[in-house]
Amino acid sequence: MAKKRSGPSGKRGSYAKGVAKREEILTRALDVIAREGYRGASVKEIADAVGLSQAGLLHYFASKEELFTEVLRKRDEADLAFSGFEAVPASADVRDIREGYLSVIRHNAEVPGLVQLFAQLSVDAADPEHPAHRFFIDRGALLRSVFADALARRFAEGGVAPRVPPETLARIFQAVTDGLQLQWMLEPDLDMAATIDVLFELVFTHARAASDDPPDGRAVREGGAA
Amino acid sequence: MAKKRSGPSGKRGSYAKGVAKREEILTRALDVIAREGYRGASVKEIADAVGLSQAGLLHYFASKEELFTEVLRKRDEADLAFSGFEAVPASADVRDIREGYLSVIRHNAEVPGLVQLFAQLSVDAADPEHPAHRFFIDRGALLRSVFADALARRFAEGGVAPRVPPETLARIFQAVTDGLQLQWMLEPDLDMAATIDVLFELVFTHARAASDDPPDGRAVREGGAA
Repeated sequence: MAKKRSGPSGKRGSYAKGVAKREEILTRALDVIAREGYRGASVKEIADAVGLSQAGLLHYFASKEELFTEVLRKRDEADLAFSGFEAVPASADVRDIREGYLSVIRHNAEVPGLVQLFAQLSVDAADPEHPAHRFFIDRGALLRSVFADALARRFAEGGVAPRVPPETLARIFQAVTDGLQLQWMLEPDLDMAATIDVLFELVFTHARAASDDPPDGRAVREGGAA
Repeated sequence: MAKKRSGPSGKRGSYAKGVAKREEILTRALDVIAREGYRGASVKEIADAVGLSQAGLLHYFASKEELFTEVLRKRDEADLAFSGFEAVPASADVRDIREGYLSVIRHNAEVPGLVQLFAQLSVDAADPEHPAHRFFIDRGALLRSVFADALARRFAEGGVAPRVPPETLARIFQAVTDGLQLQWMLEPDLDMAATIDVLFELVFTHARAASDDPPDGRAVREGGAA
């Protein structure tokens, strides 16, 4: 489906075409994986979907691992727009991000192949040489900073000095989301969004109780990495 | 180190010897994976450690996948004894299991190879044909029932009718534990036990607040699978 007349030729034009082709590949790969599952979606199947050979497809990426990492990045871009997170004002508190976050979780339950891909790459990412390593570190830091900022505003608004640092609560949100996906892959009837909503409820209860309730017999420490 | 005189010969004796050898293999495999990491620990390396060929080693298991699943089962047995969970009385409430659970989490941070193995097999387990599938379903159900029972006793003791079902809170404990491992594999400085301790604190706060605090503008639903 490539256009015959592709605008200015030369290096700049080729580069722009390369970028456009890469985007097309990632968009098609998202569809194929969402439909066929991650294990079902081989490089060959993705190549077929965009009318390239496998070698031709991998020409646009440094490796198969980079291709799949970029699929996850593309998916995050789509989710960000879908959730309304992009439009959340800087003054949002955690109640403002609740619905958008839960809508992404509900959407995940409709694309099991992408959940499988995410889960597999989040394990592969432990290898510092894997392209997903940097991706997951940056993605986690960004997700947690959005949550931590929104939680901090909620506490400030309520005049509450929380016993638990917002950064640690943000880590718990990230962890419960990733961990529930593993449970859901085994038990597809599990309602991930409803379960995460319970964590919002626990945190809201904590925010209300934090200022006037005695600690439960031990100090709460910072659980985050340095 | 096998004994020369191995008791009665014949089928029964062979079976007993087979069971003993399997146990020896799993114990050695735990050591090798804890030390070398999961990716570093090939079937060959485990076979070398017990003085068998790879074929000889796999004679004791239906497949390589079963071998690694049984390594996780063996590790759970060891953790159960280590944590004191085995000795927890039926009347325990969640405060009684807190220290034991956190001690297992702290121990995990010393055996990264076993954490990697657990994480990889928890993804592989999505395949109903993989031996880890049944293992992870049963393991999750057992872990959650221990937590849910202990939480229910805590609520009952405090005369509290919780707005959140103990089964859902148990799911959240499981999910946070699994999800934090993924974060820790990227950021080994993360204090997993301290972070999970914050979740205990949130749940305790909820238990105190549940009976006298109005809901935060929405009903809390059951998030568990049917």
